[in-house]
Amino acid sequence: MADNNDSDTKKWSGRFEEPVSALVERYTASIGFDYRLAAYDIQGSLAHARMLSAQGIITQDDLSAIEQGLRQIGDEIRDGRLEWSLQLEDVHLNIEKRLTELIGDAGKRLHTGRSRNDQVATDIRLYLRASIDEISQLTRSLQWSIVNLAENHTATAMPGFTHLQVAQPVTFGHHLMAYFEMFKRDVTRLSDCRKRANQLPLGAAALAGTSYPIDRRHVAQSLSFDGICENSLDAVSDRDFAIEFCACAALMMTHLSRFSEELILWMSPAIGFVSLADRFCTGSSIMPQKKNPDVPELVRGKTGRINGHLIALLTLMKAQPLAYNKDNQEDKEPLFDTVDTLIDTLRIYADMLSGIRVNPEAMRKAAMQGFSTATDLADYLVKKGIPFRDAHEIVARSVRYAEHKMCDLSDLTISELQQFSAIIEDDVFAVLTLQGSLNSRNHPGGTAPEQVRAAIVRAKNWLSEEKRD
Amino acid sequence: MADNNDSDTKKWSGRFEEPVSALVERYTASIGFDYRLAAYDIQGSLAHARMLSAQGIITQDDLSAIEQGLRQIGDEIRDGRLEWSLQLEDVHLNIEKRLTELIGDAGKRLHTGRSRNDQVATDIRLYLRASIDEISQLTRSLQWSIVNLAENHTATAMPGFTHLQVAQPVTFGHHLMAYFEMFKRDVTRLSDCRKRANQLPLGAAALAGTSYPIDRRHVAQSLSFDGICENSLDAVSDRDFAIEFCACAALMMTHLSRFSEELILWMSPAIGFVSLADRFCTGSSIMPQKKNPDVPELVRGKTGRINGHLIALLTLMKAQPLAYNKDNQEDKEPLFDTVDTLIDTLRIYADMLSGIRVNPEAMRKAAMQGFSTATDLADYLVKKGIPFRDAHEIVARSVRYAEHKMCDLSDLTISELQQFSAIIEDDVFAVLTLQGSLNSRNHPGGTAPEQVRAAIVRAKNWLSEEKRD
Amino acid sequence: MADNNDSDTKKWSGRFEEPVSALVERYTASIGFDYRLAAYDIQGSLAHARMLSAQGIITQDDLSAIEQGLRQIGDEIRDGRLEWSLQLEDVHLNIEKRLTELIGDAGKRLHTGRSRNDQVATDIRLYLRASIDEISQLTRSLQWSIVNLAENHTATAMPGFTHLQVAQPVTFGHHLMAYFEMFKRDVTRLSDCRKRANQLPLGAAALAGTSYPIDRRHVAQSLSFDGICENSLDAVSDRDFAIEFCACAALMMTHLSRFSEELILWMSPAIGFVSLADRFCTGSSIMPQKKNPDVPELVRGKTGRINGHLIALLTLMKAQPLAYNKDNQEDKEPLFDTVDTLIDTLRIYADMLSGIRVNPEAMRKAAMQGFSTATDLADYLVKKGIPFRDAHEIVARSVRYAEHKMCDLSDLTISELQQFSAIIEDDVFAVLTLQGSLNSRNHPGGTAPEQVRAAIVRAKNWLSEEKRD
Amino acid sequence: MADNNDSDTKKWSGRFEEPVSALVERYTASIGFDYRLAAYDIQGSLAHARMLSAQGIITQDDLSAIEQGLRQIGDEIRDGRLEWSLQLEDVHLNIEKRLTELIGDAGKRLHTGRSRNDQVATDIRLYLRASIDEISQLTRSLQWSIVNLAENHTATAMPGFTHLQVAQPVTFGHHLMAYFEMFKRDVTRLSDCRKRANQLPLGAAALAGTSYPIDRRHVAQSLSFDGICENSLDAVSDRDFAIEFCACAALMMTHLSRFSEELILWMSPAIGFVSLADRFCTGSSIMPQKKNPDVPELVRGKTGRINGHLIALLTLMKAQPLAYNKDNQEDKEPLFDTVDTLIDTLRIYADMLSGIRVNPEAMRKAAMQGFSTATDLADYLVKKGIPFRDAHEIVARSVRYAEHKMCDLSDLTISELQQFSAIIEDDVFAVLTLQGSLNSRNHPGGTAPEQVRAAIVRAKNWLSEEKRD
Repeated sequence: MADNNDSDTKKWSGRFEEPVSALVERYTASIGFDYRLAAYDIQGSLAHARMLSAQGIITQDDLSAIEQGLRQIGDEIRDGRLEWSLQLEDVHLNIEKRLTELIGDAGKRLHTGRSRNDQVATDIRLYLRASIDEISQLTRSLQWSIVNLAENHTATAMPGFTHLQVAQPVTFGHHLMAYFEMFKRDVTRLSDCRKRANQLPLGAAALAGTSYPIDRRHVAQSLSFDGICENSLDAVSDRDFAIEFCACAALMMTHLSRFSEELILWMSPAIGFVSLADRFCTGSSIMPQKKNPDVPELVRGKTGRINGHLIALLTLMKAQPLAYNKDNQEDKEPLFDTVDTLIDTLRIYADMLSGIRVNPEAMRKAAMQGFSTATDLADYLVKKGIPFRDAHEIVARSVRYAEHKMCDLSDLTISELQQFSAIIEDDVFAVLTLQGSLNSRNHPGGTAPEQVRAAIVRAKNWLSEEKRD
Repeated sequence: MADNNDSDTKKWSGRFEEPVSALVERYTASIGFDYRLAAYDIQGSLAHARMLSAQGIITQDDLSAIEQGLRQIGDEIRDGRLEWSLQLEDVHLNIEKRLTELIGDAGKRLHTGRSRNDQVATDIRLYLRASIDEISQLTRSLQWSIVNLAENHTATAMPGFTHLQVAQPVTFGHHLMAYFEMFKRDVTRLSDCRKRANQLPLGAAALAGTSYPIDRRHVAQSLSFDGICENSLDAVSDRDFAIEFCACAALMMTHLSRFSEELILWMSPAIGFVSLADRFCTGSSIMPQKKNPDVPELVRGKTGRINGHLIALLTLMKAQPLAYNKDNQEDKEPLFDTVDTLIDTLRIYADMLSGIRVNPEAMRKAAMQGFSTATDLADYLVKKGIPFRDAHEIVARSVRYAEHKMCDLSDLTISELQQFSAIIEDDVFAVLTLQGSLNSRNHPGGTAPEQVRAAIVRAKNWLSEEKRD
Repeated sequence: MADNNDSDTKKWSGRFEEPVSALVERYTASIGFDYRLAAYDIQGSLAHARMLSAQGIITQDDLSAIEQGLRQIGDEIRDGRLEWSLQLEDVHLNIEKRLTELIGDAGKRLHTGRSRNDQVATDIRLYLRASIDEISQLTRSLQWSIVNLAENHTATAMPGFTHLQVAQPVTFGHHLMAYFEMFKRDVTRLSDCRKRANQLPLGAAALAGTSYPIDRRHVAQSLSFDGICENSLDAVSDRDFAIEFCACAALMMTHLSRFSEELILWMSPAIGFVSLADRFCTGSSIMPQKKNPDVPELVRGKTGRINGHLIALLTLMKAQPLAYNKDNQEDKEPLFDTVDTLIDTLRIYADMLSGIRVNPEAMRKAAMQGFSTATDLADYLVKKGIPFRDAHEIVARSVRYAEHKMCDLSDLTISELQQFSAIIEDDVFAVLTLQGSLNSRNHPGGTAPEQVRAAIVRAKNWLSEEKRD
Repeated sequence: MADNNDSDTKKWSGRFEEPVSALVERYTASIGFDYRLAAYDIQGSLAHARMLSAQGIITQDDLSAIEQGLRQIGDEIRDGRLEWSLQLEDVHLNIEKRLTELIGDAGKRLHTGRSRNDQVATDIRLYLRASIDEISQLTRSLQWSIVNLAENHTATAMPGFTHLQVAQPVTFGHHLMAYFEMFKRDVTRLSDCRKRANQLPLGAAALAGTSYPIDRRHVAQSLSFDGICENSLDAVSDRDFAIEFCACAALMMTHLSRFSEELILWMSPAIGFVSLADRFCTGSSIMPQKKNPDVPELVRGKTGRINGHLIALLTLMKAQPLAYNKDNQEDKEPLFDTVDTLIDTLRIYADMLSGIRVNPEAMRKAAMQGFSTATDLADYLVKKGIPFRDAHEIVARSVRYAEHKMCDLSDLTISELQQFSAIIEDDVFAVLTLQGSLNSRNHPGGTAPEQVRAAIVRAKNWLSEEKRD
């Protein structure tokens, strides 16, 4: 019977009707993915052509033809009118071929003094630089969402967890600001990565430089590179920038996966701290309050993908002899997918956070579980002069008593508390309540609402300053 | 100026014109890649429907309608007439929706007693099973190419390398057969992986099973599964099969990367042991004998990609609570790309090997470098009763003498050799030549041509037996 | 001031007082970790010596001396009396040197017809085989713990989660048995891995075999290998077995990390399904009910380590040319640590599970959250003839009503339910309760207590049969 | 028989004689590896104590006792007199316990206002900062070795390879300077990583800060931190610095693996460009010129280990909820081993490069292979006005002619060359020779000796400036 016949489904795929020669062509070609570099390829070619002309290597007429031809090709690509050819292997040959069709011999002269080895390295760096800028900007948008949400919750008590056990009270705003710090590091890390990526390889030609009197600094300047790659062999064989970026991205996804894990936990019915807007969840027609946190789950899952791409690139470069080897063609797909995943995730996250609904009552209740202010009682006693060890013993007995009464420490009367130590006075309640506990952690970095508000002010300043032109 | 303006190229991508709502839809939908499971989805649905009908859960009429509807949808997909909708999220809903359009209410009844959680798990396993079978078959084709090439070179001497230094002579056929052994392990590993993958999850429904009187073994049988997943929670949350397969694939690519490394070395001008047919290389118009081994280089590079996918899946599953979480949607792309890469690579490799040109003279010359038969002289002396340590001393002096004369040990006269030990006789030359050295390693697994021929016979028998129906 | 002076702490380490020559010695030596192979090295040497004697390559007297010498060395190692020397590089040379000290020339003859390349490959395979056997046995112990715990909870209702949202009721026994299935796959996977590991490399010598008339099958048999490596080049360069094992281990740790994640969640105060015996947790002197699930957290964390070792080995072997390269020395530490981590974790887990305390009441309460039997009501209606879509609408309205009344569906009266559909009768309560819902999923793999009991019987049979001699 | 009895060797290990309780103790304790943080723990404690005293939280007397006690403990550790106890779990408790033994209650007061969560984070950051400084310094030493070697070979011609095929001539000095560039990026990357690592977590206490009036900036300053972690939850849960460092390390090892791959190739007998000093190689007593490049092979192999550690840490942190979880204890071993491996490797490499012996004649000969100056002929023709495509055709014909004559292009007479184009004149020989070709690539980054010399000057300046105080 045809339907569950593997050989039938196999034929569907048409895989085995492809002759090996066509397969080799497809296997070795990169146009299937590097067409995405087209805009950067044109950008780089224009800068190269202008330098060639300025140096007298090509004529002004050739330059004009090249400029006009590349602009037309740009338009054709934008409008989807250029048909990419697998036989022309890659984006560079596809564009060069089209250019020659349009403007003749001048098109061939464009390639003077360069090679595809330095050309592709230039294209990827331009692409990565633009991607880093996009990602930095989106991260800052996400940070704004965090800051805005945190601002509404500088005094909202929630349980601070260690080991997923209730430890001490913190404010929700303070908890959120932990993520602000992570993303702040990410932005500075990306900016450091950008410096190293933003160096011009063009001029390295195949691997050794060229015998034409090129002016690399001119090209670097016109493409806004910070400098030139100082060694031609390194210029064509280096993919550090892709790896460094993917490592930055893996850290960002690690942060986003932690945030997602928490959102998933917080949305679980037993916890119920927050809910996400419906469009980030899927529901079930028959279980109305079942709201699956699809987006955070996907983000958590996509961490794997990004870690995988990092390993792909590290494995790719391991033990490769200099200079250019065809292996390097494999750098693009992991890089592209990393950029795409990060950009999509950041955009969604910024929007998702701004629509979060918080349940302060659930947070407050959970913070009352587990005698989260017991540490505060101990500190209170120590400050009154009781040795630490003795203070602990007093707290332990108080907690056992309250546990037995099934209430919190703050629910005990002053005389009940005084059973355990006569030194306890009325001022103890200021530290036993959630708010008292929170207020007491009042130093830079602490969870006291005053400190969280100050942290938010600093954060806003940082976000305002951090703008790149 | 527009051309090197990042914001301009950014606009090109259109990324920021996409509203977040559309982005979320795209982000959470899987139809962009899981459409590839369509044939398996239909196959699974047909088996499910037939069971439902056999169990009296749906009517015979409903079954007929479903069969006819699914067949038509199958045709539509094959012919590219079905338009996949992003709003319908995944391949399952796309097909179900179309089915309901075609046959009405009966289409809705198809989903009785199942859920997308067990449905997708079934689809992937069917896909993976078919992929494993394809890959096993292609691996055997590659092994045939190896055996056929080895058969022509059972006595072709080449240097055996350790540490990339010439160590002892081996035959080229023997060297090739090392790869036969690696791929033999791969085939058995895939077959073991297949057993564990080939278990039916269907019937687990969302996570707990269903209240309909389903017959899971009936479905398993009709879909040629070896058995059923014995626990519904495990059935919907397990992705072991994908990870196990990707680990097998990573080993296969490791083998292929080693083979590629050797081909690249062997094609390097200083070595020149083999050349590949032109269609697996790129040349250069101005350097006629420059032949870049593009295909082996890409294969070497693609190892990274496969290792990356393995890590992606392991990271994905780390610490996921039971049962189904949306994270799991991320299992498909790494798996699909692993399968595609492996299939393409194996096809190309089988063809590439059958067109390899061997340069026995270059091999022979290289094998003469480095006194590769010095070990043989030592063994000769030991067998004549000289203590090992003394034998070594004799060999060392002989080698120094020959080195000085700039010739090989086998080029020395008998009297020259006898300077170092009177025990040496004319029969020494039988062991000092490449052929003598080769012939002497005459035990199972050794490099003696006789043994290599025997290994090839065993290999052919194995290949003939290994055929799967 | 000295105390916070980095240069001071640097001097502490003494790192820079080590001369480079000593550093190179330490860097290249493996005795720092391969001493662990000593027992296997002796085991392999004894088998080799006996074969050499049986083949007449060494005398019976030599054999007797070797046997006696190796036995003495074995004793010395066991008692910690043998001093390993870094200058003797590795375990092989350390033992050989000591043997020669003890028995003179006969000791040197032991190395006839072999090389360290095939010797170390033999040692690791013996080590790995023993490790696999230990791990399989420990996994079965863990499975017994699971089965025993599950047996007490075949009817204990708990919420089944998808997306960490309450989905449908399952039994705790059923949930536990999902892990039994995972570990069952692990045991079979290890057993498949063992087959491929259990092949004798000895006889491959440096890379090409040897000119001595060795009998490899004799050695294989006496060491209980399943067969011999059929190609000498492959024999010394293959590390597939280590990678395959590490991939199995990564899957096992993935399972253990999922189990750990659940234990951590289940111990969180808002959930409180289980508690672990104190010795697997740490507490806090002042917060009596704070019980940190240290062991599960460490297990979850150690998943990273094992994934890392897998990548280490895959990276190690990528693109290595044949045959033996010194890189391979790096195979041992990741392998050893993987084995150690897995053995420790499995032992702890088996013990930890057998001491778990379950809180069925907390589970029951949580299962009542979220209208977990809504699906059951829909199925009930469909079976009574209501079209699926209409049934859903009825359920949705009922749920909204119950939600408003702040009670579960099963708390509604029959007349309340009949508001939504007259077809609902008293028998509906059989499906609306947790027990009714559980009982209804009564097919192989389903969560019905009857099925869970049957699964446990099958599990016990499997465990009893699975015993290796 | 005892010898090949697995159960016997198993008993050796003693593994199964360890009671589970002892196993749990060992499994959860970190003292087995974190004792390495002792110097940093003391350094941090001293700064903390001084701040406590300055803030009036402890008395001056307590401070004096603590300072004296910690100094004594420091001495005891240095001299190996302190016995680490597994029961005291970690380095912090071991030191605290000893301190209390020595100075009584004052020792207990040291822990006021901090927790092990912020204490360990501080220790690791201090350790990592010192490690980064060591590694940066060693990298610069290695760069000096490179520059010194390059300086002797600014005009030594060798073949530049692409695809391991001879492409165009480069100088050996130029080739080496490619590695200088890689390590330069590494140094700047480490310096960027240092900034983010060098922030003080102390003061975060368990997770929320403390109610004592601490002065975190005072502590930061006295420990030379650049600033304080601005959020207490982030401070105790962040391990970005470890991951970022491991990513830097992975890139460094990638560079070192590439260098090693080239050294191994260059030492292979068919190539023979360089030889390493004997102490970095192993030889063979019977094959005098067999010199195995053990050190480069090990370095290449150790790349895997470092990639593995990076994945271990990324996996560790994936989806961890805030704040501190016991998982984090697993951060240390991968980090320590990464630091150790890198430090050892860099030290060895710097020494190894300074002892390299170069064979310029072998390089020159290899550069003559493959018509490496064919590109130069084409450029020559283009500059004389021949259209590019025509120039190519002329070159191709010339090469075929030379190939037939089995000589290089530069060996042809002027009249032979003029057969292919009358435009060729005597000045062609200036470009056809290796030296001519090299000299012509005379722009920044090019391989012309003049440029290489200039690059070396820049490199030396950079190295001189880069010194950290």
